[in-house]
Amino acid sequence: MDLFFLFDYIGTFVFAISGTLTAADKRLDFFGATFIGFVTAIGGGTLRDMMMGDLPVSWMRNMNYFWLIIAGVVVTIVFGKFVMRLKRTMFLFDTIGIAFFTVLGLKKALLMDIEPPMAVMMGLSSAVVGGIIRDTLCNELPLIFHREIYATACIAGSLIYLSLNYLNVTEIVCEIVTILSIITIRLVVVKFDIALPLLEIKK
Amino acid sequence: MDLFFLFDYIGTFVFAISGTLTAADKRLDFFGATFIGFVTAIGGGTLRDMMMGDLPVSWMRNMNYFWLIIAGVVVTIVFGKFVMRLKRTMFLFDTIGIAFFTVLGLKKALLMDIEPPMAVMMGLSSAVVGGIIRDTLCNELPLIFHREIYATACIAGSLIYLSLNYLNVTEIVCEIVTILSIITIRLVVVKFDIALPLLEIKK
Amino acid sequence: MDLFFLFDYIGTFVFAISGTLTAADKRLDFFGATFIGFVTAIGGGTLRDMMMGDLPVSWMRNMNYFWLIIAGVVVTIVFGKFVMRLKRTMFLFDTIGIAFFTVLGLKKALLMDIEPPMAVMMGLSSAVVGGIIRDTLCNELPLIFHREIYATACIAGSLIYLSLNYLNVTEIVCEIVTILSIITIRLVVVKFDIALPLLEIKK
Repeated sequence: MDLFFLFDYIGTFVFAISGTLTAADKRLDFFGATFIGFVTAIGGGTLRDMMMGDLPVSWMRNMNYFWLIIAGVVVTIVFGKFVMRLKRTMFLFDTIGIAFFTVLGLKKALLMDIEPPMAVMMGLSSAVVGGIIRDTLCNELPLIFHREIYATACIAGSLIYLSLNYLNVTEIVCEIVTILSIITIRLVVVKFDIALPLLEIKK
Repeated sequence: MDLFFLFDYIGTFVFAISGTLTAADKRLDFFGATFIGFVTAIGGGTLRDMMMGDLPVSWMRNMNYFWLIIAGVVVTIVFGKFVMRLKRTMFLFDTIGIAFFTVLGLKKALLMDIEPPMAVMMGLSSAVVGGIIRDTLCNELPLIFHREIYATACIAGSLIYLSLNYLNVTEIVCEIVTILSIITIRLVVVKFDIALPLLEIKK
Repeated sequence: MDLFFLFDYIGTFVFAISGTLTAADKRLDFFGATFIGFVTAIGGGTLRDMMMGDLPVSWMRNMNYFWLIIAGVVVTIVFGKFVMRLKRTMFLFDTIGIAFFTVLGLKKALLMDIEPPMAVMMGLSSAVVGGIIRDTLCNELPLIFHREIYATACIAGSLIYLSLNYLNVTEIVCEIVTILSIITIRLVVVKFDIALPLLEIKK
C-alpha cells in the first residue's frame, strides 16, 4: 500500500501543476489559480468519495494532500517558465498520475463491495473528473470530451485489472500490469495521434 | 413499487438518449458522448442521494441502471438518424421520464423524513439536474433556465401529490394522478408554446 | 449560537438576492432566476456538508433557509429596480454574509475534528462556492477567479480566528474579531481597488 500512497501523492502533485498551468493560460489571479490547482487535484477523488459515502472525503483526513497541492501551485508559479518547457515530462507525469488514480479508485470501490462495472466508473471518476471540473470552471468544453483517447486508456486498464484479478493473479502484479498498460496505451495513442471518432448524427 | 422501477428505468434510458444526442450535436467523440449520456441519466439522482445521505448513490447498487444507460447510448449511436426523426416520440418519453423521476425523488425524500417543501426540491432535483449538468458540461446556458415551463410542471405535480396525500387519497392514486398531471401540463405548455416570462430588472 | 443563526440567515437571504440579480442580467425566466437564487445561497454549504459527511445537508433540516431564499427571490423580483439602486447596501450585506459564512464553515469543520488547514478550506467553501456555481451555471468565468481579493479576505480572517483560538481568547471574541477583520479587509480592498496580480507565465 505504501507504493500506492507514493504514486497517489505524485498524481496529486502533478494534477495541481496541470490545473495551475491552465489557470495561468486563462489569466486568472493567484487565488483563482490556486483554486483551480486544488479542484483539478482533488475533484475526482472528492466526487468518488461523495458518491460512495466514504466521508469526510479522503483528502480531508490526510494533510499530505494539502501540502502537495500547495507545493504544486507554488512550483508552477515560481518556475512557471521552466515547467512549460518541461511539457513532455509533465505529460509523462500526468499519464502516470492518471494510471495510479484509476487503479486507486477501482480498488477502493471493489473494497467497498461496489459491482465491478461501477468500480470501473469510480476509477475513471478518480482519474478524469478533476480535469473536467477544471475545464468547466475555466469556461471551456472539457478537453477529454473531444480529444485524445484518455478515458479509454483508463477503462481498458481497469478491464485488464479485473481480468487478471479474475484469473487469481497476485494483487501486486495486477496493479503493476494495469498501470503499465494505461501508460503504454496513452503514450502510443499520443505518439500516433490516434483519436476516437467524433460522434456525428446526420439529420 | 414494481411499476415504479419500470418507469424509473424508462426515464434513465430516455435521458441517456437525450444526453447522447446533445453530445452528438456538440461534435464530441464517443467517450464524451457516453459520458454525457451517463451524467444526464444519473446526475439528478446522484445529487439528490448525495445531499440526502443515501450512500452509495442508488445507481451504484443496482446494475440495471448501468446497462440501461449503455443501451441508450448504443441505440443513439447506431440508430442516430432514426432517433432524430422520432423526436416527437422522444419528447413524450422524456416527459414521462421527468414525471416519474419527480415522483420518485419526492417519495424518497418523504420516506427519509425530509420536510415537504424540501422533498419537492428533491423531486425537482431528480428530474432536472441531469439536464443542467449536461448543458453546463457542453458549455451552454442550461435550456431549462430560459425555455419551456418544465420545472414548473414538476413543482405543480409535486404540490398535487402532497395535497392528495394530505387528503388521505390512496398512494397509488396519488402517484398516477401526479404523473398524469405533470405529463399533461408539459404537453399543454409545449403545444400552446407557453413560456415563463423572462425576468427583467430595469436599471 | 443564536447570534450566529441570525447572521447565517442574513447571509442566506442576501446571497439569494445576489443570485437572482445575476440571473436577471442573463435574461433567465422566473424558474431559472429562482433556481440560481437557491444555488447561490445554499451551494457553498451544500458542498461543505457533502464533503464532510454531515447529511442530509443542513438546509434540508431547517425550513428557515427555504423561506428566506424564497423571500430573497421575491424581494428581488418585486423590488428589482429599488434593489439595484441599493447596490452599495447590497455589497455591504454581501460582505457581512461572506464573513459569517466563513466563520460558520470554519467552526463546523473544527467541531468535526477536521485539521485546521482543511477547516479553513471548509470556511472558504461555505463562503465562495455558491457564487462560483452561480457564475458557472450562467456560463461565465467565475468572478472570484479574476477580480477582487474576496477569497483572500476569507482566508486571512480564518487565520486570525485560528491564531486567537490558539492564544485561548474567548470564543465570542474570536468570532467577532474574525468577522470584523474579513469585513474590513474587503471594504479596504474595494475602496482602494486592490486586486491580486494575474498569474502570467511567459512561454
